[in-house]
Amino acid sequence: MKYNPVTEEILAELREIVGDKNVMTDEEKIEAYSHDEIPAEQYAHMPEVVLTPNTAEEIAAVMKLANRELIPVTPSGARSGLSGGAIPEHGGIVISVENMDEVVEIDYDNLMMVLEPGVITNNVNEMLEESGLFFAGYPMSVETCYLGGNIAENAGGGKAVKYGVTGRYVMGLEVVTPTGEIVQLGGKRVKDVTGYDLKQLIVGSEGTLGIVTKAIIKLLPKPTQRVGLLALFKDEATAISTVPKIMTEGRIIPTSIEFMDKLSVKTSCEYLNEHLPYQEAGAMLLIEVDGNKEDIVNADSETIGELCLDNDAIEVYVADNHTTRERIWSVRRNIAEAFKVVSPHQSLEDIVVPTANIPKLMPYLDDISEKYEIKVPCYGHAGDGNLHATLVKNPDHSMEEWFEIEEEALADLYQATKELGGTLSGEHGIGSKRKKYMEMMMSPAELNLMRGIKKAFDPNNIMNPGKIFDLE
Amino acid sequence: MKYNPVTEEILAELREIVGDKNVMTDEEKIEAYSHDEIPAEQYAHMPEVVLTPNTAEEIAAVMKLANRELIPVTPSGARSGLSGGAIPEHGGIVISVENMDEVVEIDYDNLMMVLEPGVITNNVNEMLEESGLFFAGYPMSVETCYLGGNIAENAGGGKAVKYGVTGRYVMGLEVVTPTGEIVQLGGKRVKDVTGYDLKQLIVGSEGTLGIVTKAIIKLLPKPTQRVGLLALFKDEATAISTVPKIMTEGRIIPTSIEFMDKLSVKTSCEYLNEHLPYQEAGAMLLIEVDGNKEDIVNADSETIGELCLDNDAIEVYVADNHTTRERIWSVRRNIAEAFKVVSPHQSLEDIVVPTANIPKLMPYLDDISEKYEIKVPCYGHAGDGNLHATLVKNPDHSMEEWFEIEEEALADLYQATKELGGTLSGEHGIGSKRKKYMEMMMSPAELNLMRGIKKAFDPNNIMNPGKIFDLE
Repeated sequence: MKYNPVTEEILAELREIVGDKNVMTDEEKIEAYSHDEIPAEQYAHMPEVVLTPNTAEEIAAVMKLANRELIPVTPSGARSGLSGGAIPEHGGIVISVENMDEVVEIDYDNLMMVLEPGVITNNVNEMLEESGLFFAGYPMSVETCYLGGNIAENAGGGKAVKYGVTGRYVMGLEVVTPTGEIVQLGGKRVKDVTGYDLKQLIVGSEGTLGIVTKAIIKLLPKPTQRVGLLALFKDEATAISTVPKIMTEGRIIPTSIEFMDKLSVKTSCEYLNEHLPYQEAGAMLLIEVDGNKEDIVNADSETIGELCLDNDAIEVYVADNHTTRERIWSVRRNIAEAFKVVSPHQSLEDIVVPTANIPKLMPYLDDISEKYEIKVPCYGHAGDGNLHATLVKNPDHSMEEWFEIEEEALADLYQATKELGGTLSGEHGIGSKRKKYMEMMMSPAELNLMRGIKKAFDPNNIMNPGKIFDLE
Repeated sequence: MKYNPVTEEILAELREIVGDKNVMTDEEKIEAYSHDEIPAEQYAHMPEVVLTPNTAEEIAAVMKLANRELIPVTPSGARSGLSGGAIPEHGGIVISVENMDEVVEIDYDNLMMVLEPGVITNNVNEMLEESGLFFAGYPMSVETCYLGGNIAENAGGGKAVKYGVTGRYVMGLEVVTPTGEIVQLGGKRVKDVTGYDLKQLIVGSEGTLGIVTKAIIKLLPKPTQRVGLLALFKDEATAISTVPKIMTEGRIIPTSIEFMDKLSVKTSCEYLNEHLPYQEAGAMLLIEVDGNKEDIVNADSETIGELCLDNDAIEVYVADNHTTRERIWSVRRNIAEAFKVVSPHQSLEDIVVPTANIPKLMPYLDDISEKYEIKVPCYGHAGDGNLHATLVKNPDHSMEEWFEIEEEALADLYQATKELGGTLSGEHGIGSKRKKYMEMMMSPAELNLMRGIKKAFDPNNIMNPGKIFDLE
């Protein structure tokens, strides 16, 4: 499919729709919209124009125009993604929702909140601070990412073991379709089987089926008690083999079970200029328990602590105050950013396997590391079976060698993941980065169903084209 | 679209595929497959043939044949549905999954279970009795319904306030598509954003997009403590206005908040020959709290009890033993069946509104009752905003009058529901029964997206045609 360029006439129409000041064509300004948080340059692509509309109606008008003129449109949030989902692979128009950051309503009677997509996720909970309520979404990029992006990617994060991922909390969506219709999906209803669940189909569709312009999210009563445990192990295998046991032997579903290997902790600590007294351990589990009763939360965290020690933890530290917890979480949250700075040539992966198979995955990482002579630091949401194994270029390799190694090592990694009942991505999405591996994971029949859905929503393939799969 | 009949040649082919003994054409035998639990006869429709295959491969072969010959196929489970979802509206082939009732695996390491669709939902938890685990699905038809039907309808039930509906526990599905492909969607992964979420699209699609032949469901550690409260109120309004307060003021998300008006309790008690000492109250709330610590569960139930009394409950009974709890739940579970027996001419509805709007809904029911001179008993999952208001024919009205009244009263009821931010169905589905009201609730754009998805899965519209919406 050949797309048409954004001509001066089109630009004039766009200015008419969204207003002069919401149309950017200046190269220096729009460069920021050409990439997300993937450091590798090959995924970047410049848009022709960036729009910052203020309303769903404006976006609908832009979509109608783009659909008529066959111009690709890429929705864009905080661009903190890690799969290229917000990159305008075919140029054309980027629609950034940065101006649409209004909190439309906090509905205390239904325990819900209505938000525009440009609200920073962290701000949601800051706004709720006094209310005793909270939004359970907690991606590691919580301080910068937008709610709209969380919905587009069905973001997971650090609390998904207990609370599940973003989709569980999305009750309603206002969406502008690729053909420029504004549809209201779901609503403030906690149950709804009236027709197909289009709302959940939009969640995680990476901006390929529409642009979210409003979201109704569910809030929960905020737990009053939190205890964090930092369990130190001599090596990765010992740490990781403890993870499934917390749930199966301990019969406790904690809020978080995060895994960090030594290199991840070290890199993040150096980046933050942080000194954890125990950062030299072989691997760590950061486990958190929350609830409303101090004695229950304490009892659960004690059970987990003992279970860790029974499984050869060297030591278990208790972080029962906000400052200590926040220090440790900050180390965890900043690993990706730290690696990006010290090792710009890397591939941050997001594989997910059945939780019980995490221990079986670890030897494969060692194999890959040895076979290709690269470091493969690993960290992530072990309680969900979701690990951010990161292939890092060996400084001794040329860029050419690295590109070859990256491709082969990724294929090995995904093959191992598949054999263990896992798949490509637990939370970062496919975007442009993992598209070529989709056929390895899915049957042609399944991919064709997805293509059929895409065509039903976007007959001219103008909405974020080139992501997840190619149409032909 | 004109479908082709099931000829002798087709029957011979079907016998070849599924085996002689799994092909039924005898009218007396197949009559049972012509209706579900809707008492109204106008929704019933005879199939031409009923198949009881044993494997996904057999079903796939049948689907390929039906797709080639343009014969409609309707998937069928326990036929305990309440929207006509399993009724072969256009005749043709019924595929009953009754023979596919194997428990493929209990995976204690991943806290998951792999089941065929013909497993009776109640049996799942009976099998798990010793394990300390449970499946959180609890539709009111739990003793008869199949897991496959629960998935097709995204069944809700009595524990959804705390645990959510069926879809939350569906981790993976094996599905035979309308064109006869076998696809594996999802898996034993607790997170997965690899492509569109086809699995959740199948959940609640009422058998119009495929036939589930295997499901991976998530299990939870079973709470060891349960307390049931039966709160008696002088009237419906008082009872129902208490419901949202339990969550907003009490900040407790109980397992269940079930509402029953006086007529519902009376009818079910008479049907069961049960005598609750307090069955003459104006309305009741059945509230349940579960957890692992006795003192917490007791404290929560006390808080809720006090909140009920503060909201003018006449009395609050505590049911802290299994027998008493089961007696009360049995009354609740049997209301629909009891009404079906005493009032076969009725319309059991399944409206859902934002929980905070339930009190506002009640006066509309009174208005409808008065306007049409019919009784409108009401009960249901009040904690979800999901009420089974039931329009019951006035014995003084002729059948002709009743049909007219039913149609008008339903339109009034749905209009009121819509105005309160609600919709047609919280858990029973649309099927054939509520299809004509879809346009009242949804925009043409939204309906067209659903039609597009249907066409992508089922280009010849042979899979359960005539349900949810018409294609043209």
